[in-house]
Amino acid sequence: MPRRPLSLDGVYPPIATPFNSDGELDLNSLKKNVAIWSSTALAGLVALGSNGEYVTLTEKEKLDVVATVAEHLPADKELIAGTGSESTRGTIALTRKMAELGAQAALVITPHYYRPRMDEKALANHYFSVADASPIPVLIYNMPAFTGIDLGAETLIKLSEHPNIAGMKDSTGNVVKMGEVIRFARPSFKSIAGSASFLYPALCVGATGVVAALANVVPNAVTELHQAFREGRHNEAKELQLRLIRPNAAVTSKFGVPGLKVAMDLKGFYGGPVRSPLLPLDEADREKLRSIFAEAGLL
Amino acid sequence: MPRRPLSLDGVYPPIATPFNSDGELDLNSLKKNVAIWSSTALAGLVALGSNGEYVTLTEKEKLDVVATVAEHLPADKELIAGTGSESTRGTIALTRKMAELGAQAALVITPHYYRPRMDEKALANHYFSVADASPIPVLIYNMPAFTGIDLGAETLIKLSEHPNIAGMKDSTGNVVKMGEVIRFARPSFKSIAGSASFLYPALCVGATGVVAALANVVPNAVTELHQAFREGRHNEAKELQLRLIRPNAAVTSKFGVPGLKVAMDLKGFYGGPVRSPLLPLDEADREKLRSIFAEAGLL
Amino acid sequence: MPRRPLSLDGVYPPIATPFNSDGELDLNSLKKNVAIWSSTALAGLVALGSNGEYVTLTEKEKLDVVATVAEHLPADKELIAGTGSESTRGTIALTRKMAELGAQAALVITPHYYRPRMDEKALANHYFSVADASPIPVLIYNMPAFTGIDLGAETLIKLSEHPNIAGMKDSTGNVVKMGEVIRFARPSFKSIAGSASFLYPALCVGATGVVAALANVVPNAVTELHQAFREGRHNEAKELQLRLIRPNAAVTSKFGVPGLKVAMDLKGFYGGPVRSPLLPLDEADREKLRSIFAEAGLL
Amino acid sequence: MPRRPLSLDGVYPPIATPFNSDGELDLNSLKKNVAIWSSTALAGLVALGSNGEYVTLTEKEKLDVVATVAEHLPADKELIAGTGSESTRGTIALTRKMAELGAQAALVITPHYYRPRMDEKALANHYFSVADASPIPVLIYNMPAFTGIDLGAETLIKLSEHPNIAGMKDSTGNVVKMGEVIRFARPSFKSIAGSASFLYPALCVGATGVVAALANVVPNAVTELHQAFREGRHNEAKELQLRLIRPNAAVTSKFGVPGLKVAMDLKGFYGGPVRSPLLPLDEADREKLRSIFAEAGLL
Repeated sequence: MPRRPLSLDGVYPPIATPFNSDGELDLNSLKKNVAIWSSTALAGLVALGSNGEYVTLTEKEKLDVVATVAEHLPADKELIAGTGSESTRGTIALTRKMAELGAQAALVITPHYYRPRMDEKALANHYFSVADASPIPVLIYNMPAFTGIDLGAETLIKLSEHPNIAGMKDSTGNVVKMGEVIRFARPSFKSIAGSASFLYPALCVGATGVVAALANVVPNAVTELHQAFREGRHNEAKELQLRLIRPNAAVTSKFGVPGLKVAMDLKGFYGGPVRSPLLPLDEADREKLRSIFAEAGLL
Repeated sequence: MPRRPLSLDGVYPPIATPFNSDGELDLNSLKKNVAIWSSTALAGLVALGSNGEYVTLTEKEKLDVVATVAEHLPADKELIAGTGSESTRGTIALTRKMAELGAQAALVITPHYYRPRMDEKALANHYFSVADASPIPVLIYNMPAFTGIDLGAETLIKLSEHPNIAGMKDSTGNVVKMGEVIRFARPSFKSIAGSASFLYPALCVGATGVVAALANVVPNAVTELHQAFREGRHNEAKELQLRLIRPNAAVTSKFGVPGLKVAMDLKGFYGGPVRSPLLPLDEADREKLRSIFAEAGLL
Repeated sequence: MPRRPLSLDGVYPPIATPFNSDGELDLNSLKKNVAIWSSTALAGLVALGSNGEYVTLTEKEKLDVVATVAEHLPADKELIAGTGSESTRGTIALTRKMAELGAQAALVITPHYYRPRMDEKALANHYFSVADASPIPVLIYNMPAFTGIDLGAETLIKLSEHPNIAGMKDSTGNVVKMGEVIRFARPSFKSIAGSASFLYPALCVGATGVVAALANVVPNAVTELHQAFREGRHNEAKELQLRLIRPNAAVTSKFGVPGLKVAMDLKGFYGGPVRSPLLPLDEADREKLRSIFAEAGLL
Repeated sequence: MPRRPLSLDGVYPPIATPFNSDGELDLNSLKKNVAIWSSTALAGLVALGSNGEYVTLTEKEKLDVVATVAEHLPADKELIAGTGSESTRGTIALTRKMAELGAQAALVITPHYYRPRMDEKALANHYFSVADASPIPVLIYNMPAFTGIDLGAETLIKLSEHPNIAGMKDSTGNVVKMGEVIRFARPSFKSIAGSASFLYPALCVGATGVVAALANVVPNAVTELHQAFREGRHNEAKELQLRLIRPNAAVTSKFGVPGLKVAMDLKGFYGGPVRSPLLPLDEADREKLRSIFAEAGLL
């Protein structure tokens, strides 16, 4: 049975990458996590995003992760893979390999090391080159907290003109920019929130889905919010949104990937250790994280 | 007839301050603008905000502006005055004078010159001192684009505990922070969007009103958006919101107060010159501004 | 006897403004401080700089400070006054008053509130307008830590073309920019370091003097460094420079004006309280400050 | 003949990596460049720095570059290799391979992707882990323009306590921080300027050398400046420093690696194309670069 086509409509966790206590890839734990996620209303999974610690993975590890997910993810779930790097040729090469493994779209982060040179012209050249060469649709990944680069509305609108650039994941929470993109971009260009913390307001201005770290941990809470909006239950969506803001921060801005993995452990997933230079949460921060989830009724 | 009580519910333009061609205060033009705004569904006016070029006004000019507005604004409109400065004692002194002139609330910007020292403790001490001494409620004014200081949710929640701090005007567009404040602040603490560009998503997460530069120019468009939301017409609110984003940028982030005044001139208000070091828009930028309003159907 | 002409060559403290325990201006303590500074090798004084808490002073207080200093400063010391504000017309008006009181140069900070509009054109228009109208030379004051605006070398070189713009005080410690300005600006344009922390390297690339908060506290240590450089004693200059870095930070970036005033109290000057929203140092920070000065052999 | 021991005293170009017109590594051109650099007074070479476009190289390409340089660099020149990445284990693995190939020190950039988590504790853990495991001394590489992370003096002083951390390359131009490190770090810890633009002031406060992009292009000009300082010819050092600032900017902050490679082509080295997403300079910028070198008497 072929995989369900890419919709970019719904909730996608940017899945954590499990490591064992020696820091080695733990594909067995990955399979178990995939099995749980597959039993929910998630639209699909995003492998090798920032929450997947992709920058610490070797190419072989990246391929192993996507191959494992592709094999174990049911056909009614979509599969997106992060393929971006600092090199256009490297991004193209990895995108092709991921497409062969079954990824349906490539999430491509803005190259950012040579930040002062990454003007609109350079970024457009990068994305258009990748989109030209990619056998699968490209998703722009805007994540200034990690890259220091924030794609503006005008650049995104320009990039949306390429037919193989399917949409953007924007992690800034800037719903003004998102609104401008939605009004002026190619109509089929999809805007995806990059965090559950602003999912409801993003949907209000026209976003279709979310790639949310929090959906690793409490997938149902996030899909319920998406569903409430889709069905016009605005008050429920609002209340759920307000309830998710602090738990969302606990697994992103406040405690980062270490917090995400602790929260996964709390909720029956395999979180496990992070790779250095990330450090594990200390006990005080673990306790704070637990309290935040408890206060929100998510434990 | 006493003035209608402060609601912080609805749309308030932070009114431009008219100058004549010599750069002198033009109170006659101010009266004429007030008369037009008074004929709309605006909830009230905010004098001496950033769009009022308050940092270029002498104290006498500030008092003249507020006295003039207080005299000419009908009793069914609310009146808020900016009173903040870099000095706690100066802010208190001006707040008292503005209250005597009829201001119903004081909009108090974060002091910011000694930015590296403006931690939560210093800012809380400032706001609590002003709120203790002020005969009228205090509104916190968070405007990092101009001040370099961005009050976080936890600080705002702490400040909300003071009974004479009525709410906050936040100009960042950060609806995640706004949502967190709404969930955890004193329940009667009001969150006011600081721009029309994110009014709809802000209302969705629980904001009650907006102080919007754009409401100087097209007050009806902004009040219609507020009304559509209040009546549950989400699709209309969304479409209007998307339509207002670029015109809003044209009178704020893109062309600043010079753009605001040009737009006011276009729409039958007195905009007139800005004070140096602000420079007037050149003809090319005026034309861009005109096109943006035309594209949005607002000319 | 007329005052010694402006040299911009040597060490100038940006003097602290004394307040009494009620927060009122304390002109008597100011006189006493001026008397001590006058007995040293300082080239002159700068009144109403950032360390003078000028943003918390009323216009009357500003005039009182400069009148008092002008009366009590011996004729062999130079007098510079801060006159900048957010308004070009306001800056001109205050500059004229300060010139009448005896100020020999006007230190004019970059206007900064409408930061996104303060491009080179707006800033050049501001400085050229002030310089045209000012009866005394203008010193550009670049202080991005407080203003968020950092004048670049090309702008400074352009501004240097005005014959009534005498030089710049740059507080960034960017000796590359300073070197570029020195090579390409009008030859008589003076570059003044804005802190004692980089006085020696600044002199090495061609600066002539320094406006140093630390010179309020230990004027002799700073003038000795300047003198060592002038006499080609590079090793002494280097050793003294390294010794001054931490005490300098203690009265600037680390503890701000509150730290400066504590250090002045320690060294026999009147420091006294700061004005709110600045907060006094707590006892732990006072002790750290004391240790830093002790470690450097300056107590 | 064994290679001359690591001194960290003198001038080291962070060498450009040559690519042919297909974007493939061009080791022949690398050999030719190495031959020219070897005929100068450079102390040694740094391979795989930011100017070597290391973030676009595969691991095999990195090993090929260092093996080629190690083979062709005469024994009287030192060899340093960049080995840092976002992963501690990856950095250690690559450092070991580079040591086997003959690198005498490892230049380790601050990991930076998970910037908000990279506090002093995480960075110290990273550097201490690498230094513990590395068979060769570690050089800390601080480059906030690309990484968004700026190691402060206190962190650097703490890191200097590890006996296998030999020093730091700091690209900020912050000579105040450098001075503080020099006064308080382990005495044998070496401070290396990360740019020729502030070499003279850095030497004045105690730096011992420089890793300068400009030394790829005009090695003699940079070694002359270093030599003039060593011999106490301060005026010559100053004049040369002022002369080098704009050419230095042309191959770094102003035109980046594309500018560096154009300048190398101009001066008889093989510069060649950059890898995408970096874009080649357009003709207008090439002409500006040429003028800057001509004005400085370096063509």
